[in-house]
Amino acid sequence: MFPYFKESSSVDAVNSRIAPDVDARIREVMTSLVTHLHAFVKDVQLTPQEWDVAIDYLTRTGQICTTERQEFILLSDTLGVSMLVDAINNRRPPGATENTVLGPFHVSGAPSREMGACISLDGKGESCLFEGTVIDLQGNPVAAACLDVWSDNAEGFYDVQQPDIQPKWNNRGVFTTGADGKYRFVGIKPVSYPIPHDGPVGKLLAALGRGPHRPAHMHFIVKADGFQNLITHTFVGDDTYIKRDAVFGVKETLVAPYERNDDGETLWRSQFDFVMTRV
Amino acid sequence: MFPYFKESSSVDAVNSRIAPDVDARIREVMTSLVTHLHAFVKDVQLTPQEWDVAIDYLTRTGQICTTERQEFILLSDTLGVSMLVDAINNRRPPGATENTVLGPFHVSGAPSREMGACISLDGKGESCLFEGTVIDLQGNPVAAACLDVWSDNAEGFYDVQQPDIQPKWNNRGVFTTGADGKYRFVGIKPVSYPIPHDGPVGKLLAALGRGPHRPAHMHFIVKADGFQNLITHTFVGDDTYIKRDAVFGVKETLVAPYERNDDGETLWRSQFDFVMTRV
Repeated sequence: MFPYFKESSSVDAVNSRIAPDVDARIREVMTSLVTHLHAFVKDVQLTPQEWDVAIDYLTRTGQICTTERQEFILLSDTLGVSMLVDAINNRRPPGATENTVLGPFHVSGAPSREMGACISLDGKGESCLFEGTVIDLQGNPVAAACLDVWSDNAEGFYDVQQPDIQPKWNNRGVFTTGADGKYRFVGIKPVSYPIPHDGPVGKLLAALGRGPHRPAHMHFIVKADGFQNLITHTFVGDDTYIKRDAVFGVKETLVAPYERNDDGETLWRSQFDFVMTRV
Repeated sequence: MFPYFKESSSVDAVNSRIAPDVDARIREVMTSLVTHLHAFVKDVQLTPQEWDVAIDYLTRTGQICTTERQEFILLSDTLGVSMLVDAINNRRPPGATENTVLGPFHVSGAPSREMGACISLDGKGESCLFEGTVIDLQGNPVAAACLDVWSDNAEGFYDVQQPDIQPKWNNRGVFTTGADGKYRFVGIKPVSYPIPHDGPVGKLLAALGRGPHRPAHMHFIVKADGFQNLITHTFVGDDTYIKRDAVFGVKETLVAPYERNDDGETLWRSQFDFVMTRV
């Protein structure tokens, strides 16, 4: 009967068509994709009406995308796929700081600031001292480590979302460690915010009874010669949404202390050491 | 560690978020989708670069869609998903004529024609007599069965693709059987044609070393009271592309005789009985 189509051999009908000289990785990825896609359709016995809904959903997801909005990335985020790809590609030994997703709001070229400087330029929010040490797995300080940090403002928006309202580079900065590996800067205690949910992804979240919020977090990229790049957040543990991050970005080891800093010049203090993995 | 994200429990991290009161079918479909999607990512150990390609591909597929062009349906077709959904939802007992995909070129409201009439209005192509009987599984004729038939023209285009060139309803017609269940009409021996391949789907086919062609076929929808609707094609068995239909529409039982009709008024003759399944 092969190579004609049959329900029972549908995967072979498709995958046997791949030409012999096709790139091995393309073959591997597409063969697996077809296998799992057909398994899904068979598993749920997808109806034509549901297939219509899926076609329409994917089409609308593509059509809402602009240079400013990437709904397929949001979809990947909210189905846990972005975090899974990140996890698979950034496995680290026990004790090393874990990665999490970059997110859409990183901007290259933020200003380098003196250690201890304040990155909050709009004077809003609850001040927070961020400090700690960049170390290797043996606990040795990492000198000349570059920390690129960014967060939302007290209203839950990044500067690039409000270019007419927030000062440029508000809540962003780059810091470089000295021989002691220590870093220190003042920002605000970040706040939770919703991902864009006025499109197809918002509809899906609503259909699943899920909310669009991300728990409050500070973003960090830490780079140092001889070490793997670390892209991560530290999360505010007592945030309302800490156990229901819409994009699954929270890992247990990234929930950081955010404590009242009663003796200091800021309202809050968050101490977190970044443990780097050698390349 | 749960409910925070871990590679090893990524599926549970996502699916455990579905609210308790969510519609049971939505839960079933989305739980399965997440399970298979994560299995795919883990199976191939998808890289961030490949994920970027996938996001971009899906976005372009959505953005090329218009009211005239549905690239996600083409993608579903070329991955065998459309045929699989059709197969799952149209299982029939042995001996019954099998379904295949409707395709995008059906138009409701084609003119009813007298039995034996010619549907080819542009005078192009090799004439072909289509005839046979609509019967039930016991071989009894089905009276008052309605056959809605359509094909491309001799250049591989349906009338709706060339509204300024082809006569309206070219190679289309509706025929109704009498008490003997017999049908008979004159059309042309259909020709193979490529699906649209100037977009993302064409790129994928090229990457897989596959071509865009569909083997020549005549479309039929057969309806009769008390029977399941039958949506199918008959295929020209000696077509170059018979074993490599870009959309996997060919089933072995749908490869029909298309024979030289040396004694008749047409160049070709294709005899095919439609065996209907009771509802």
